Amino acid sequence: MRGLVVLGSTGSIGRQTLDIVRRFPDRFRVIGLAAGSNREALRQQIEEFKPELGFFLGSEQPIAVSDKTYRFVSMEEMVAHPAVEIVMVGTVGRVGLAPTLAALRAGKTVALANKEVVVMAGEMVVAEAQRCRTTILPVDSEPNAVWQCLRGENDEDISRVIVTASGGPFRHRAPEELQQVTQQEALNHPTWRMGKKITVDSATLMNKGFEVIEAHHLFNLPYRKIEVVIHPESMVHSMVEFRDGSVKGVICPPDMRMPIQYALSYPHRWANPDIPRLDPVSVGHLTFEPLDPSRFPCYQVALEAGKAGGTYPAVLSAADEVAVEMFLFRQIGFLDIAKLVKAALDAHHPVRQPSLEDILAADAWAREFTANQVPT
Amino acid sequence: MRGLVVLGSTGSIGRQTLDIVRRFPDRFRVIGLAAGSNREALRQQIEEFKPELGFFLGSEQPIAVSDKTYRFVSMEEMVAHPAVEIVMVGTVGRVGLAPTLAALRAGKTVALANKEVVVMAGEMVVAEAQRCRTTILPVDSEPNAVWQCLRGENDEDISRVIVTASGGPFRHRAPEELQQVTQQEALNHPTWRMGKKITVDSATLMNKGFEVIEAHHLFNLPYRKIEVVIHPESMVHSMVEFRDGSVKGVICPPDMRMPIQYALSYPHRWANPDIPRLDPVSVGHLTFEPLDPSRFPCYQVALEAGKAGGTYPAVLSAADEVAVEMFLFRQIGFLDIAKLVKAALDAHHPVRQPSLEDILAADAWAREFTANQVPT
Repeated sequence: MRGLVVLGSTGSIGRQTLDIVRRFPDRFRVIGLAAGSNREALRQQIEEFKPELGFFLGSEQPIAVSDKTYRFVSMEEMVAHPAVEIVMVGTVGRVGLAPTLAALRAGKTVALANKEVVVMAGEMVVAEAQRCRTTILPVDSEPNAVWQCLRGENDEDISRVIVTASGGPFRHRAPEELQQVTQQEALNHPTWRMGKKITVDSATLMNKGFEVIEAHHLFNLPYRKIEVVIHPESMVHSMVEFRDGSVKGVICPPDMRMPIQYALSYPHRWANPDIPRLDPVSVGHLTFEPLDPSRFPCYQVALEAGKAGGTYPAVLSAADEVAVEMFLFRQIGFLDIAKLVKAALDAHHPVRQPSLEDILAADAWAREFTANQVPT
Repeated sequence: MRGLVVLGSTGSIGRQTLDIVRRFPDRFRVIGLAAGSNREALRQQIEEFKPELGFFLGSEQPIAVSDKTYRFVSMEEMVAHPAVEIVMVGTVGRVGLAPTLAALRAGKTVALANKEVVVMAGEMVVAEAQRCRTTILPVDSEPNAVWQCLRGENDEDISRVIVTASGGPFRHRAPEELQQVTQQEALNHPTWRMGKKITVDSATLMNKGFEVIEAHHLFNLPYRKIEVVIHPESMVHSMVEFRDGSVKGVICPPDMRMPIQYALSYPHRWANPDIPRLDPVSVGHLTFEPLDPSRFPCYQVALEAGKAGGTYPAVLSAADEVAVEMFLFRQIGFLDIAKLVKAALDAHHPVRQPSLEDILAADAWAREFTANQVPT
C-alpha cells in the first residue's frame, strides 16, 4: 500500500487520480485530500476515501463528515506526514509551489501535474529534488510521454524532444477573428477535457510554452533541443529523437488516466481496462503541421520568458493566471491575454538566480500589475 | 573494438553494415566477410576491410587480393573465431541457419537480418541462444522497433505488438490484376530499397507473415498478441502496447542503417549524421489502414504455417524461396507464389518438435516439391 496525498482532489487531475485509486484499492492508502473550490465534492471524497488529513483552501474549519477522525491541516503539513510516499500535485497555478517544495524536502515522490510549479521555479524545484534524493514524475501527457520514451535510455543519447500540440480550438481561425472568440469557444478543446485554466492556456498555446519550459527543467535539456509540432489528433503525446536517428513516441488516445496511472504505478505498469486502447485503423491518420508562432503570441512570449530565466518565468505564470481569469470573467478579450502577459514581462525588473522569496515577490508583483492593467 | 563478422556482406544489409563500420572505424575490427553472389564486390571489401577470414559460396579457392594474409573458411568456422564478438547475419533464406546456430553455440551475439532463420527454426534458435547465454538482436526494422520499444520495460507488461506493413506496391491493385504484375513492378517497393527476395516477399506480404512468426519467437509472444496494420509511409516501424494502455512506437524515416547500427551499438547509441532524421511536418500524415488478408494469400498462408508450428514454417520458408525465384525467372505469375507455397504446406507430413535434421529434411522436401510443381 502506497501512502498517497492528492492536492487539488476535486479538480480534473484529482478526480481521475481517485478513479485510479478506486480501480486499485489494495495498492493505495489515501492519507490526505486537499481542494480549493468545491467543498461538497471534497466532503464526499473524505467520506469515501477516509483520509487522515484534509484541507480546504481558506478554511480552518474541518468539513463535517460522518467519520470524525480526520484532521484539517495545511498542505505543507499534509504532504510531510510520515505515511505519505507519493504526492499527486493536481493543483492549478501558483498554489502548488509551496506544498511541492515541502513534499520534496520531506523526501516524498512528487507526481506533478501542476506545471506552473516548474515554470515559476523550475531550477529550484529540480535542485530540491536532487538535494533530497527524491523524484519528480511528470503527469502532464507530453512530459509523461517523454519520460516514458526515456525509460531504459541514457540522457546523453537524447538529440531532440518533439513536443506535440493539438493546436487548440483556434488552429484554423483567422488571426483577426481571435479577439472576438467567446469564453465558451476557448473552453471547447478539440481533444482533451481538462480544467478551465489549462483549457484556455491550450487555446492560446501558453500551455505549450509552459511545457517547453517544463521539459527544459525536468529533462535538463537546452531549449534548442526542444521542438514543438502541431498534431491535431492528440494521439502522439510527444517524441524523443536519439543521436542515432531513432525516434520513440508514445501513441495512444488522449486520456489523462494513462499518464496519471503511469506516475502512480511506476516502475510497474498495471492492467486497467478503463483506459481506452489505441486502434490505429480507426484513427486513420496522424497529422503533423508546423506551429506558426505569429498566430500564437502567448507561445512566443512564454518561450522568451523561459529562455530569459531568472524571475521572468514566475512573472509569465502569474500574469497568465490573472489574465486568463480576467478573460473567463469577460473583462478582456482573447488576444488581450498575450498583451497583458507581455506588458508584465516588459515592465518587470528581473532577479537572476532568484530565491523562493524573489520568485514569490515577482509573482505577487505580476499579479497586481496585471490586475491593474486596462486592456487597450 | 568489437570483432565483427558480416555474412552476406555484398547484399543490401551487408553493404549497409560496412557503411556503419566505415563511419566508426575505431569501434570495429572486421574478422570475417562472407558472400554468395558477387565475387568482385567481395574482393573489394576484403581489400578494404582486411578481414582475417573470407568465404564465397561454392568456392574453396580464396579470392585473390593484394594482401594475401586472409584465409578462406566455412561460415561456421568464421563465426566461431575467438576474436568475433558479434555476427551480422545478412544472408537471405536458408543459408543463414547453420552459421547462426554455430555463432550462438560459440557464444557470439547474433545481429539477425535473415528472418527466414527464425521462421524455419524459431524455437531451436531461441532455445540455443538461451542455452548458450547469448543474444539474438533483431535487425529487421519492425522487430528492431519492437525491441527498442521494450528497452527498460518488463516483458510481462506487453499486451500487444502492432507490426506495421507498408502494404507493398500492390496495396491498391485490384485482385484480378495481380496475376499479371511484372517482376519489375514487384521489385519496385514504395518505401524501402532492399534485396530482391525480400522485396517480392514484401509485395506478397509473405514478409509480414514471416515477421509475425519472428516476433512470436523472438519476443515470446502468443500469436493473439501480435497485430498487423497497413501503414503506407513506413515511418512507424512498429508499436508495443503495454497493459496500462500506453503504446510506444519507433517513428523515423525508412533507412536500414538505423536498425543495423542500433544492433551493432547496443546498448549504446552513436551519433551518425548519415542516418536521415524525422521531420514530422514534411511527413505530414501517418496513415493506418486495415490489412485485408483476402488480398494477400501469402500472409494468410504464413500465419497458418506459423501457428501450426513443427516443420510447417520450414516448408513455408523453403517453398517461398523457390517460388519467388521462379517468379523472378518469369516461370510463374505473381499469384502462383501463394499457390505453390500452399500446395507444399498441404502436401507436407509435418514433424512435431523437429530436430535440425527434421527441419533440413522438410526444407529439402519442400524445395524439390515446389520446383516440380507446374502452376495451373
